Parts: sequence; structure tokens; C-alpha cells
Amino acid sequence: MSTPTVVAPDRSIVTMTEIVLPSHANALGTIFGGVVMSWIDIAAAIAAVRYARSQAVTISIDHLKFFVPIKVGYTVQIDARVTWAGRTSMEIEVNVKAENSITGVVEPATHAFLTFVAVDANGKPKPVPPFTPSTPQEKKSFEEAAKRREARLKG
Amino acid sequence: MSTPTVVAPDRSIVTMTEIVLPSHANALGTIFGGVVMSWIDIAAAIAAVRYARSQAVTISIDHLKFFVPIKVGYTVQIDARVTWAGRTSMEIEVNVKAENSITGVVEPATHAFLTFVAVDANGKPKPVPPFTPSTPQEKKSFEEAAKRREARLKG
Amino acid sequence: MSTPTVVAPDRSIVTMTEIVLPSHANALGTIFGGVVMSWIDIAAAIAAVRYARSQAVTISIDHLKFFVPIKVGYTVQIDARVTWAGRTSMEIEVNVKAENSITGVVEPATHAFLTFVAVDANGKPKPVPPFTPSTPQEKKSFEEAAKRREARLKG
Amino acid sequence: MSTPTVVAPDRSIVTMTEIVLPSHANALGTIFGGVVMSWIDIAAAIAAVRYARSQAVTISIDHLKFFVPIKVGYTVQIDARVTWAGRTSMEIEVNVKAENSITGVVEPATHAFLTFVAVDANGKPKPVPPFTPSTPQEKKSFEEAAKRREARLKG
Amino acid sequence: MSTPTVVAPDRSIVTMTEIVLPSHANALGTIFGGVVMSWIDIAAAIAAVRYARSQAVTISIDHLKFFVPIKVGYTVQIDARVTWAGRTSMEIEVNVKAENSITGVVEPATHAFLTFVAVDANGKPKPVPPFTPSTPQEKKSFEEAAKRREARLKG
Amino acid sequence: MSTPTVVAPDRSIVTMTEIVLPSHANALGTIFGGVVMSWIDIAAAIAAVRYARSQAVTISIDHLKFFVPIKVGYTVQIDARVTWAGRTSMEIEVNVKAENSITGVVEPATHAFLTFVAVDANGKPKPVPPFTPSTPQEKKSFEEAAKRREARLKG
Repeated sequence: MSTPTVVAPDRSIVTMTEIVLPSHANALGTIFGGVVMSWIDIAAAIAAVRYARSQAVTISIDHLKFFVPIKVGYTVQIDARVTWAGRTSMEIEVNVKAENSITGVVEPATHAFLTFVAVDANGKPKPVPPFTPSTPQEKKSFEEAAKRREARLKG
Repeated sequence: MSTPTVVAPDRSIVTMTEIVLPSHANALGTIFGGVVMSWIDIAAAIAAVRYARSQAVTISIDHLKFFVPIKVGYTVQIDARVTWAGRTSMEIEVNVKAENSITGVVEPATHAFLTFVAVDANGKPKPVPPFTPSTPQEKKSFEEAAKRREARLKG
Repeated sequence: MSTPTVVAPDRSIVTMTEIVLPSHANALGTIFGGVVMSWIDIAAAIAAVRYARSQAVTISIDHLKFFVPIKVGYTVQIDARVTWAGRTSMEIEVNVKAENSITGVVEPATHAFLTFVAVDANGKPKPVPPFTPSTPQEKKSFEEAAKRREARLKG
Repeated sequence: MSTPTVVAPDRSIVTMTEIVLPSHANALGTIFGGVVMSWIDIAAAIAAVRYARSQAVTISIDHLKFFVPIKVGYTVQIDARVTWAGRTSMEIEVNVKAENSITGVVEPATHAFLTFVAVDANGKPKPVPPFTPSTPQEKKSFEEAAKRREARLKG
Repeated sequence: MSTPTVVAPDRSIVTMTEIVLPSHANALGTIFGGVVMSWIDIAAAIAAVRYARSQAVTISIDHLKFFVPIKVGYTVQIDARVTWAGRTSMEIEVNVKAENSITGVVEPATHAFLTFVAVDANGKPKPVPPFTPSTPQEKKSFEEAAKRREARLKG
Repeated sequence: MSTPTVVAPDRSIVTMTEIVLPSHANALGTIFGGVVMSWIDIAAAIAAVRYARSQAVTISIDHLKFFVPIKVGYTVQIDARVTWAGRTSMEIEVNVKAENSITGVVEPATHAFLTFVAVDANGKPKPVPPFTPSTPQEKKSFEEAAKRREARLKG
């Protein structure tokens, strides 16, 4: 529909903050892994839509590991950004931190890479703007993303 | 419990991002006012807890006005920060922006000031750290907050 | 669409009753302010729709104060009624009571005035029936509502 | 714990009002039967707790029939009241009306009788106040309830 | 639309499994009856849709009795199957078991018969495939279902 | 606490069935990836708890790929079973199928391996029963699971 133009990667940056409620937790008072995954997917979806300026659907999520239990009452911060874009697909990196807001202690809680595809109103894949990393950090994470993509296509 | 110490006001800054789902909306496809209020309260609560390093409860919300209808599929960003603190209460300012992520158009959607009180485990009010505005912007909003507080105590 | 006709103000009266569940509450076992606001908005929306016989959207909420903490297990009763109507807008008063159903003790918990606008299927404002207070109580609250409206238009 | 005293049956009267949201409905835009049943159970639970002044648990629901489809956007009003009380159990009658708030047309949507038992903090049955019908209407529905109870004990 | 053909009754068998979360439970930590009813209705709806290969709506639910309290942390298994079909309506039997997954103890928790009607896209009743019981067990439950239907039509 | 004893792997088998509601879906009418992940995590958690006879927490999810879009109104079936157990951890395989219940067409929708750790009431890891595959199929998937575990420990 629109001609893809180069966009600054940081247009896609998303920050979500959530409180862990009793309804998010098991009998031990720690959050269900699936609730965190659900927040990760929404943050990544917003990043993908902001980057592509179109609807986008989740294609895959890479190996995801929970580092620490997240307890009821904690604050969870989810940060997502696009790290790579191909013709119609995008890789999004998501970092999740768990914060005990009473003590102020913040710990990394989980981390994931997701792949989304931009789609039109009929659900057909459509082109996304080219991704042009500019800072050294962006270039490094772009190259690593390209390698992960190759591994995914093989695996 | 702990001796209150001066803290930088920006320790309390919170950013929440949400997608408007069909279950948030009325028959016209626009979000219920109450859903936005609910997000505003959670963002403000996190800001208050981060500032006070204790549990905190909502005491009041000031006049809140919806500027534009927010539609299903829009992204909503909620930004909260503490603007004033007394002995046990805090004022939190919340700004809400509605984003059509497909077009990239972002509009201010609503704005509110909330008051929270820090409480201990029995729900009794407890002291919060003194608020020391440092930048000119912080000083200005601190003085305005003090005036709103006076108006609230009278009203 | 339909010619507005005079309607009895009590056609809009709404009573909602809710139980406070663990998922509505923070770590102290008291309800999130935002949950109460969300119930207030739904009760007011039903009152507005019943009065206007059309869809209606929230425009503003006036200063809202929480008098007492509402605990998990309490019953909450929300009463809404239209107190004033202009050409396309309506003011709705909402009273919230918290009930400890075991002891039978009922306390006022919060109170708010909301403004709604009647809208057609495209979201455009549309006329509402004229409001004609008949009892002395209705006349008194109608006059007070008119003053609040003036204050809102200025503020 | 407390000595049961005679209470007026109308202390238990509950009115709930809900809007049918898209998340309550199937692909046809009509409400899931289970959502209505869930509202019926909550209204009846509040009536039982108010009557018994103790926690109470659902024991049974009698034959429940849906008269009309209830559509997204409709307002649903649920009215519950205790109609009979034994030593530890109570019968609650629930009436559900569906309202098209735009047209003002209200239709009976469903109707049910539920049985609850009052329980103490350990979940053990405990006595409820005797039920003394005073109006002819209360007497009639009390006698009918007693017959339903006999049928339930047999069936 | 399609010519009804004979189908094996077991095409409709549905198994749902749920964990009882704190948000499903009352102050005693036992599940609300309405949450179980809601799961029963969804399981029965899936069975009806699978059997009829069309949308279907709940018409009635028969006497439903809770045998044991179901606690937070328990696993609940809901099994549904079509037991009878007429021209446009179907009877579905639902069995609910409560499992303490830590001890492995499983108990019958509730049981219900529901009636659904198959409907087209406009909500009008439409024919369902004839039900032909083949095993002795299917024949027995078919005959019992036919008797329940007669009782419902009378009652 | 209890001496681990050999258990049949099939004690852990879980089947969940869900309907895709409008509140689960994006603007295209297809389910959010995060909702599916959340169902996968709950099914896997039940399998882990049933196997270990103790609480269990999610440690990781392996590469998860969505094969087909899942639409509002579809039925989703989630099947989980333990494929491997170490001293305190278990691997659970989850298969997800999407069913258009109107046409009867069923397609594989996603697939994942999750790792859970059994924990005691303080959240400390505790031993699980040894896993003894008996059928050739169980032996094959046990050996493959052992290889995935080695890869996870390296990665």
C-alpha cells in the first residue's frame, strides 16, 4: 500500500509495566509463566505494529528462560524493540525485569526473541520498512539477529 | 521503619503501554472510560509505591476529562510521575496518549492528578521521603501541586 | 432519529452490586481505586443510555474521593441516576456503598459526578430528551448540577 | 456464634446490572449461557450472605431455561431474594431481565432457584436465622419453596 | 444447508481441564458455583457445535448439584458428550471431577444435563444430524435422555 | 517428604479445550500468540503437578512456532504430557490443534517443550519420581528429551 521508507529503529521501542496480582499467581504466590509470556507477546506485538505501520502476527518465540520467581505484589517491566527486519518479518527483543517496589531491588527475570510478520487486512504478508542500524550497538544486535534467523530457518 | 531520605523525583516514573481490545470497548468500538481510569490508577499506584517504598492506597482523583475517543486496536501509553509529597501523601500526575499505530498519529487522550497515601502492613498511614524538586520544571509542577492540595483540602 | 420527549428522571436509575474478589485487590487486601472507578463508569453509562435511548460516551469525571478502604469479601453497591441533561450531554451522580455482609455494616465508600454525551452510530453527538425535575429533591439536585456544569466549562 | 434471630426476608434483596460485552458473547453476538449463570450465582450468593450474616456456598441450581437470546450491548438486570430458609440452608429465587436500552424494551430472559448453605470459617454448615414470611406474597412463595425442597431431597 | 447425515456420537466428546485460581474463589478459598457453571456451559457448547457442525445456543440446564467444595489449587476436569439429538436440539451430559493434584485424590464434583439448539447465522434453529446410538451404553443413555426431554417439555 | 516411587508416564496426560473469544484476538480476528502461550503453560503446569505430586514452576520454554492463524470462534485443543524427568525437573511436551468446529477441519497449530521444576511450600526444588519409559514410543521421546536437555544446559 505505502512505499516502505527507512525508519529509525527506535520508533518501535515499547515499555510496559504491570503489577503481579493474586489472579496471576499459583498456590505458591509466584506468577504463572504463561502470564509473563502473554505480556511479552503484547509488548512485542506493539513494537512490531509501530515499526511496520500495519497489523502483525506472532510467528515464533525463541528459547525463553525464567531466571527468578516473580512474586505477587512485584512490579514487572517489559521492554521491547525491533532488532532486525527482513522483507515482511521482524525480530523483536524483549527484556523483562522484576522489581520489588518496596525494597527497590530490580532483577532480570526473563528475556526472549520473537518473530512477527506484517500482514494486510486479509492476513496476507506485506513488506515492512528496511531496518538500517546506525549506532554500533544497533549494528551488533542486527548482525546477531541475522544469525538467529538463519538458525531458525534451518531448525 | 526506615528513616525517610531525600529521593530524586524521577525514581517514580512509570510508563505503561496497552492495546485496546474488543473486551475494553462499547458497541461503538470506543473504549469504556472506566478501563482508562483503571489503567491510570494502576500506573499511579506503581509510581506511588516506587516513591514511598511502601504500599500505597488511592485517596482521590481530580477532574478527569476525555479529549478524544480511543478505538479498538489503538495503542494507549500511560505516563505517571510523583509531582508532590507531604508527610504521608503523594500527588501523582498521569498523562494518557492514544496512538493509531498504523498511521503513527498520537493524540493526548486524557490527563489526571491522583492522591495516594503510603500505608504500612496494617493499612495505617506512614511517612514518605521528602520531595525535593531540583529542575525548574520540577519546581514549577511542585508549586502547582501544592496549590491543588490546598484546593482539595478546602473542597 | 426520534423526537425527544420529556421523560421521568427515574427511568435512568441503576443499581449494581459486586463482590470484591482477590483479583480486585492489592497486597493489603483492599480494592484498587481503578476497579471502583471502572464500576462507577459502567453504572453511569447504563444510566446515560437508559435516559438518552442512544449510545453514550464518558466525557469527564469530577473530583472523586475514597472515604474508606474496601476489603476483599465486601459487597459493593453502586447507585447511579441522571441529575441533569442539556442538549446532548447528561450529568450522572453515582453513590458507592461498601458493605461488610457478615456484620451488616454499610458505609459510604465514594461518590462521583460524571458527564456523558449521547452519540449516534458514527459517534456524533445527538440530542437527548429534556430533563424536567418534578420532586423538590430532583429540582434541588438539578440546580446544583447546572452550577457544576458552569464550573466545568470554565475550569 | 450468634444466636439466630428472626429477620425480615427483604434484608436479602439484591439487584445487579451488567452490560453484555463482546467478550461475553459467541460468534452470533449472543451471550454464553454460562456468563448468565455466573451472574445468577453471584447475585444469589450475595443474597444468601446478607440473609445468613455468614459465608455461604452453592449447593444446587434448579432447572434453568433461557427464554430469549441476549445480545451484545444489552443491559441485563439480575434480581435475587431469599424465599425459604431451613436450619442451615436457604433457597434463593433469581429473575433475569434483558433490556435493549436503546429501545427501552425489557424482556424476561431467565429464572432460577438456587440452594445455598451457610458455613463457618472452616466450611462447616452453621445455623441461619428463621425465615418468617409476613406478606401474603412471601407466604405463598415460602410454601412453594418448601415443596421444591421436598422434591429436591427426593430427586 | 447441508443434508444431515448419521454421525458417530463420540465425535462430540470434549475434555476441558482448568486450575482453580484465587480469582475463581470466595473468602473461604472454595470456587464460586458460577465459575463451574460457566465451564460446564463452554464444554457443552463445544460438544454441541462439534456434533451439529453449526453454531448452537444454550436453551436449558437441568438440576445441578455440587457434591464437594472445590478448593483453590485444585485441578478441575470437565467431560461433555452429546447423549441425544432431535430435529434441531441436542442434550449434552457434563461430568465434572475435582482433583487434588498433590495427593492425586479425584472426586466427582458435579454433573449436569444441558439442552442446546443448533442455529444458523441469523440465529434461526436448523436441523442437526440424526443421533444413532450403537453401543448398549449409548442406547441406555439415549433412552434416558428421551425421558428427560419429555419431562422438560411438560415441566 | 515422600519417597519417590516409579510412576507410569501417562498419569500426567492433560487435555484442555478452549474456544477463541473476541477478547483473545487482535483487530484481524486472529488469536494473540500470548493467549496460546498462556494456555500451553497452564496445561504443562497441570501435567507437571500431576506427575510430581507437588507444586511446580516454569523454568523454560523451547522454540515455539505458530503454523496457522487461529481465528475467533475456533476450538483449540491443548494436549500435554511429561516426556522426561530428572532429579527435580521435568520436560513437558505440548501439542496444540486448531479446529474449525463448523467444518470439522483440524490443523496442528503449535508445539512446544517446556521445563518445570518441582518445588516445596517454600519454593525450594524437591525430588520427583523417576521416569521409566515403557513403550517404544515413550523410550524414543525420552531419549530425544535427554538430548534437548543437554542442549539447554549448554545454550
